[in-house]
Amino acid sequence: MSKLIKNGTVVTAVDQYQADVLIENGIITQIGLNLSKEGAEIVDAAGHYVFPGGIDPHTHLDMPFGGTVTADDFETGTRAAAFGGTTTIIDFCLTNKGRPLSQSVQTWHQKASGKAVIDYGFHLMIAEINDEVLAELPKMIHEEGITSLKVFMAYKNVFQADDGTLYRTLLEAKRHGALVMVHAENGDVIEYLIKEALEAGNTDPIYHALTRPSLIEGEATGRAAKLTALAGSQLYVVHVTCEEAVQQIAEARNKGVDIWGETCPQYLMLDQTYLERPNFEGAKYVWSPPLRPQHHQEALWTALKNGQLQTLGSDHCSFNFNGQKDLGLGDFSKIPNGGPCIEDRFSILYSEGVVKGRITLNQFVDIVSTRIAKLFGLFPKKGTIAVGCDADIVIFDPNVTRTISSETHHMNVDYNPFEGIVISGEPVTVLSRGEYVIRNKQFVGTAGAGQFVKRATYHAASRDVKSKNVEVVKGGATHV
Amino acid sequence: MSKLIKNGTVVTAVDQYQADVLIENGIITQIGLNLSKEGAEIVDAAGHYVFPGGIDPHTHLDMPFGGTVTADDFETGTRAAAFGGTTTIIDFCLTNKGRPLSQSVQTWHQKASGKAVIDYGFHLMIAEINDEVLAELPKMIHEEGITSLKVFMAYKNVFQADDGTLYRTLLEAKRHGALVMVHAENGDVIEYLIKEALEAGNTDPIYHALTRPSLIEGEATGRAAKLTALAGSQLYVVHVTCEEAVQQIAEARNKGVDIWGETCPQYLMLDQTYLERPNFEGAKYVWSPPLRPQHHQEALWTALKNGQLQTLGSDHCSFNFNGQKDLGLGDFSKIPNGGPCIEDRFSILYSEGVVKGRITLNQFVDIVSTRIAKLFGLFPKKGTIAVGCDADIVIFDPNVTRTISSETHHMNVDYNPFEGIVISGEPVTVLSRGEYVIRNKQFVGTAGAGQFVKRATYHAASRDVKSKNVEVVKGGATHV
Amino acid sequence: MSKLIKNGTVVTAVDQYQADVLIENGIITQIGLNLSKEGAEIVDAAGHYVFPGGIDPHTHLDMPFGGTVTADDFETGTRAAAFGGTTTIIDFCLTNKGRPLSQSVQTWHQKASGKAVIDYGFHLMIAEINDEVLAELPKMIHEEGITSLKVFMAYKNVFQADDGTLYRTLLEAKRHGALVMVHAENGDVIEYLIKEALEAGNTDPIYHALTRPSLIEGEATGRAAKLTALAGSQLYVVHVTCEEAVQQIAEARNKGVDIWGETCPQYLMLDQTYLERPNFEGAKYVWSPPLRPQHHQEALWTALKNGQLQTLGSDHCSFNFNGQKDLGLGDFSKIPNGGPCIEDRFSILYSEGVVKGRITLNQFVDIVSTRIAKLFGLFPKKGTIAVGCDADIVIFDPNVTRTISSETHHMNVDYNPFEGIVISGEPVTVLSRGEYVIRNKQFVGTAGAGQFVKRATYHAASRDVKSKNVEVVKGGATHV
Amino acid sequence: MSKLIKNGTVVTAVDQYQADVLIENGIITQIGLNLSKEGAEIVDAAGHYVFPGGIDPHTHLDMPFGGTVTADDFETGTRAAAFGGTTTIIDFCLTNKGRPLSQSVQTWHQKASGKAVIDYGFHLMIAEINDEVLAELPKMIHEEGITSLKVFMAYKNVFQADDGTLYRTLLEAKRHGALVMVHAENGDVIEYLIKEALEAGNTDPIYHALTRPSLIEGEATGRAAKLTALAGSQLYVVHVTCEEAVQQIAEARNKGVDIWGETCPQYLMLDQTYLERPNFEGAKYVWSPPLRPQHHQEALWTALKNGQLQTLGSDHCSFNFNGQKDLGLGDFSKIPNGGPCIEDRFSILYSEGVVKGRITLNQFVDIVSTRIAKLFGLFPKKGTIAVGCDADIVIFDPNVTRTISSETHHMNVDYNPFEGIVISGEPVTVLSRGEYVIRNKQFVGTAGAGQFVKRATYHAASRDVKSKNVEVVKGGATHV
Repeated sequence: MSKLIKNGTVVTAVDQYQADVLIENGIITQIGLNLSKEGAEIVDAAGHYVFPGGIDPHTHLDMPFGGTVTADDFETGTRAAAFGGTTTIIDFCLTNKGRPLSQSVQTWHQKASGKAVIDYGFHLMIAEINDEVLAELPKMIHEEGITSLKVFMAYKNVFQADDGTLYRTLLEAKRHGALVMVHAENGDVIEYLIKEALEAGNTDPIYHALTRPSLIEGEATGRAAKLTALAGSQLYVVHVTCEEAVQQIAEARNKGVDIWGETCPQYLMLDQTYLERPNFEGAKYVWSPPLRPQHHQEALWTALKNGQLQTLGSDHCSFNFNGQKDLGLGDFSKIPNGGPCIEDRFSILYSEGVVKGRITLNQFVDIVSTRIAKLFGLFPKKGTIAVGCDADIVIFDPNVTRTISSETHHMNVDYNPFEGIVISGEPVTVLSRGEYVIRNKQFVGTAGAGQFVKRATYHAASRDVKSKNVEVVKGGATHV
Repeated sequence: MSKLIKNGTVVTAVDQYQADVLIENGIITQIGLNLSKEGAEIVDAAGHYVFPGGIDPHTHLDMPFGGTVTADDFETGTRAAAFGGTTTIIDFCLTNKGRPLSQSVQTWHQKASGKAVIDYGFHLMIAEINDEVLAELPKMIHEEGITSLKVFMAYKNVFQADDGTLYRTLLEAKRHGALVMVHAENGDVIEYLIKEALEAGNTDPIYHALTRPSLIEGEATGRAAKLTALAGSQLYVVHVTCEEAVQQIAEARNKGVDIWGETCPQYLMLDQTYLERPNFEGAKYVWSPPLRPQHHQEALWTALKNGQLQTLGSDHCSFNFNGQKDLGLGDFSKIPNGGPCIEDRFSILYSEGVVKGRITLNQFVDIVSTRIAKLFGLFPKKGTIAVGCDADIVIFDPNVTRTISSETHHMNVDYNPFEGIVISGEPVTVLSRGEYVIRNKQFVGTAGAGQFVKRATYHAASRDVKSKNVEVVKGGATHV
Repeated sequence: MSKLIKNGTVVTAVDQYQADVLIENGIITQIGLNLSKEGAEIVDAAGHYVFPGGIDPHTHLDMPFGGTVTADDFETGTRAAAFGGTTTIIDFCLTNKGRPLSQSVQTWHQKASGKAVIDYGFHLMIAEINDEVLAELPKMIHEEGITSLKVFMAYKNVFQADDGTLYRTLLEAKRHGALVMVHAENGDVIEYLIKEALEAGNTDPIYHALTRPSLIEGEATGRAAKLTALAGSQLYVVHVTCEEAVQQIAEARNKGVDIWGETCPQYLMLDQTYLERPNFEGAKYVWSPPLRPQHHQEALWTALKNGQLQTLGSDHCSFNFNGQKDLGLGDFSKIPNGGPCIEDRFSILYSEGVVKGRITLNQFVDIVSTRIAKLFGLFPKKGTIAVGCDADIVIFDPNVTRTISSETHHMNVDYNPFEGIVISGEPVTVLSRGEYVIRNKQFVGTAGAGQFVKRATYHAASRDVKSKNVEVVKGGATHV
Repeated sequence: MSKLIKNGTVVTAVDQYQADVLIENGIITQIGLNLSKEGAEIVDAAGHYVFPGGIDPHTHLDMPFGGTVTADDFETGTRAAAFGGTTTIIDFCLTNKGRPLSQSVQTWHQKASGKAVIDYGFHLMIAEINDEVLAELPKMIHEEGITSLKVFMAYKNVFQADDGTLYRTLLEAKRHGALVMVHAENGDVIEYLIKEALEAGNTDPIYHALTRPSLIEGEATGRAAKLTALAGSQLYVVHVTCEEAVQQIAEARNKGVDIWGETCPQYLMLDQTYLERPNFEGAKYVWSPPLRPQHHQEALWTALKNGQLQTLGSDHCSFNFNGQKDLGLGDFSKIPNGGPCIEDRFSILYSEGVVKGRITLNQFVDIVSTRIAKLFGLFPKKGTIAVGCDADIVIFDPNVTRTISSETHHMNVDYNPFEGIVISGEPVTVLSRGEYVIRNKQFVGTAGAGQFVKRATYHAASRDVKSKNVEVVKGGATHV
């Protein structure tokens, strides 16, 4: 059945206008003034924004970490995402040295299958480069539609790859059109700082922050940028937290290096003092990289405004305070890293960014959806409101205020790091390919309705079109 | 009568899709698949791009300079602009010390009235700040819709304002929401370098370039940026030519200063060696700032790509080689500064930028139209293709190649600085508020059909919407 | 009569060793272990440092300013200098537009003649460049031995020169081997900020600081550096106060520009809050550029340590609090700019720099004496302890502490900006060309004993020797 | 017996003057005009410079590498050094993982003992940090007088330490007052680039340069600088070759980081094209880091001039072209890295630096001797000409020109990388602790006369004196 969204204000990464939007077969087919369509269901959006659905480029669902497993799986996680205005996620598929990539991907398909209520894709972790990996990579990228590769510069002896592996991954990505993602912290130094802190009896959560100084996030970011320049490849730096890293990204971009940066709501809103909260509450705020002293927040906002950072991810990686975070009682290094954010990412950026005048409404859409779609090969199927696109749409009421709380959130976790923060605006209705997932703030979706999206390569999609021939971007995304 | 553009590929600063576009009463009313409208004239755009019309933020028509007057007036100039795909210009209204601003504006209205074939607005030159100017400025900005103020840091004893005047203009602009534009070269030093060159008998055109080194464009750009930071105001640097200036802009932007930069086709395509052409041909290439050594071109392209420069102006200021440029025979300082570019700006950026892979198709639209509309208070009436906007549209054939030549161009000037350059793509049909100006490459417009546009302030328009209430940008633009 | 300094620790800009120093005819003739000399007066320096006498490159004695005249003349000023360990000063000779340079110099000679107790030289202010100035300059530099030229970028309508004058001064300096000195603040902007403050009723001393922000000292410094680079000349930035200016100097030096920077004790020790002192006491701390917020002090110390700043001047320009500073009651812009520092410069740098571990003992000598001698054509006659040099020597006791106070200082002024500050170390005996000026902390010198020093050019002296032939630096300095 | 050097021009890092120098018991005891001493041997230095002997901070004598051993041992190497004007060397003591440091040092003592003709010290390579190393380090530093520690960031699987080891070495150095030295190249990336080149059949010497791009020397230099800042320690970057590395050092220094940089004659004089020489001649020019494209040379000279680089080392590591370099025929990665330079370092800097006007004569002394002595705890025994110092003196004739050639050089190797280069100036007589090593250009020294020097710690010596008490620097150096 077709739907006709009436009287809303459509907002894209560049435009804003009042118009009706017609959806047929899950696709946007018309946008216009005073549209009518026989048989179409009318969706009233008067007084509301009509946004493209949010895209979360950075989630960890159903992921084992440090002897436990994240609290949210693909069902609870994507449902919360939808409540928050997100209609597509890209989750990180972990791999193991010596295990075929295809098996890891298969594992991740099994985690998601039958559970996801919105569409999803996968990034692929690269732990090593050897002949087997080299043989599998083209298939992963071109056939499986997994067009982004994640390398860790931290987590020594766990996920960490050496610079040679990073460099080779950049070369392979260039060859096959993939985008390399990097967790940029100097894991060697961190390993020693943690050891030194623990030996000195410094076991509280705050030492998580103090053993991962921003200076070495900056160092690793600059190193990755330089290897990218050398390889002539492309890089996406996940979860940028500090001005040192922003500066390295800006320097590289100014030289023409193809580098992009993501930050997360926690780094924009919370600061290092949260880790000092008593009664082990600090453990709720243990992310890697860690929360920073407050002055870094301004550097991040400025970078979002002037385009030196381009996207917002949630880095959703939820663990319960009771039963999971407390694995680190008496040893901060055993606190599972991560926190719940998949639901609040979209609204926080709207409220803190747009309402507070730090970014424009168009920039909001770009940062939370459009640029992500372009970088990760989802565009133009996802990430915008235009004729021919998937009808992944958020009808958003900017006139409400509400308080974030674990008592009302929909994530499967017993705390919310933004507890008590009052924000403006709320998704009212969320459509995935034209179907309701959230309707008048109620979940009406279906586990398993979400489809895996084979993404286009970075070369095909993110750079738009360079051909002189008229053609719609080929990349896009195909549904399985 | 309504028009229906069929089968084209619509391109905005963010989107690209195949759709039909319905125009009623000069406004875009529907965009969709397979549209039909009784009585509407069908405009076939199959195989063509459907772009928003170009906006040229930097023209000098019918302008007196150095004892002569530019070769193009508002009729010949806007007609050529339309041929080239530009549907709005913003021309510089010169002022004189001691003369009421309103009188200067009146003079400029008289120049344009009954002549322009496309819509136009004015920038206002600020030569001094005194009580009279302070009294008139709010009226100019808020009532006359002239929301951008131009200050010259060069042309000593002619246009040049001192730093105090620049600073006060920035303060007034901040107060009233105007955007300050600056010609950034150190006029004091240039004056001496010219004097020294002439005394040494160095009178050829090349000395025009050698007496205006890029280092002092960088100096003046940095100075203006710092005064902007101090004032907490906003700045737009016109005709950026060199890496020193780009670097100053980038540094300021990275600190959060609200500064923007424009470059011009001549600086992207031509270099300093052109001024050495024999038989005084070098005079054809006399712009201020001058053409630079070739390596600066890469810096400019990189800046357009990574967003450190945001717009392209033509700085159209045409003088005939015979009878005007030759005023400078034997004394390069008497060569009228400027050249014809209003017609070729749009296509050159497409061909050199998009086709050669330096920028994306979306960036092309942003640089040549959308960003300009946003910065100068024309958005959303102008600068995009969206429901509710003026139907200022270019139907563009990317599949042709052609050679730029003064024999075929439509500007009223006897040479073309890009003579012989082969470019890809050509505007086929150009609509201004839904009416044909160019139809199948033929001029069918009317002198005087172009309207003066009262522009919104910088605060209202360029920053989009910051309110939490749903509203279409108020600024926009109103037609007289 | 000859003197033999026994048992001291000789310190130069590079060395430190225990040795005796023999002085004959005002010249150092031997340095060695266990020296003896028949008939020589023994000067015991056991437990003391034997330093080269301090050189103050920046004084204003007997200078008219704002309707009054500085409190110290060449007699009181040089006597206080000697007490403080300074054996040479270079004073600024003001000039007036339209008046022959030679007349201004003659006036300055008259001020000093018969009064100075230590040697002295002059810098020459350049207010304009015209044919007369051009004709006189070579004589001033090569015959009069006035080899440094001062240009003001501030004090609009009083001292301020425009950029063309600065640039031409740089060119003339290059031609004749002079060193250009610049007061780097943007006078145009300051003029307006002062006017605006006064109109708003902001008349207290603190507004002196608030109307001269560090950002525009940085701006002017960068501008002067760029003009120097363009001219291929050499520049010395007087009284650097802030990190913005340091950064500009560092950037230029890193590109190979021949630029040097001086700071002053007041900027290292005092901060902007001093201007807020009640009962108009803030007026005592009115210098231009002004005292800065405290964090700038660290930037200045770091720059002295790593060589981005190279010298320390006093900018001694004393006005009595009662009867002079109070001209600015009710209008901060009428407070005479400047303060007394000629006596404390040397000891403050020793105490705050060396004793607190910020710079080494060798760096102390370099900053307070040697580098100044090299830059201003006094070396090797002045500025070091080596065979053949003038015996301008300070025997310094590092083991005392004392409190700076106007009650005990020797400057002819009724307050001391460092009142109450406790410092370590004190000059005990000071020799000028082998003659006592201070002996056991008592003044034993003679007004008029100080000689005018014709200084060598920058090219001859500051760059040491570039010839492949063995020769002692010719420049040096000759006594009149 | 005592010696009296007559009529020379003494030059130190700050002074230059004509004087006689008296030497007694190997120590300088007097400097003065017209000295005489009964029984002293007169050494005529008329028309000559009297320099402090050069100190070479970077040599590899009798060192195994890649299956062979360097061509020069401590006898031939130090003899050649003396011919060239160098009177002290500091050689790198290699260590092995798992082997006690003391054993490695013992090995090195055995290499030098009875052979060295001039004084020498050792740096200590750190391959790993473990409990044994931690236990031995204080003894090495404080008892053995080996106060500098070398860490390799390159030579994967051979010398390369990871970042954790580098960081811990910096911490230990801070604790014990040692100076960390770093070979800064990204070994991980280089390893892959070499592998890739060889697999592609690119086996010629030029690929040595192409697989070690300057960008990753810059990367590693910046990384080391940031770890130094984090540790609050001190760093000396050996053999800086490129502008990227210079920029990283300058940035860190400007922030107050305690970091120093050394370059080598080969990087100032030769460029990457030398590796393309036919008949495998390119192998003669294989150093790591490699020779760079020519434009880097200007960056290095500018850095020496403005103090961003401070010292010159030879990195002497000689291998015969026939029989050693040719191990790499058909595989550039097997060419022994290094070349002969110990003899020419001093004269090349004089000729290319001073005579060509790039640095001053004082800077020459500082770069080639004094600063090295201060950084490495040899000062004031070594590195200057002052009363009380070791009489390590070079009498240098600036009036000759000569051609560098393997036919006339004194190094035990069959080629000279500077073959055919004409330089100005030559050491005539060289004294080590007052004894002739070179007399009238003839070797008159004795194998074994050179003594091992226990060096002071970095804290004691390089920062000169910070105490407020008068004392001669304690550190200095003691002879075994």
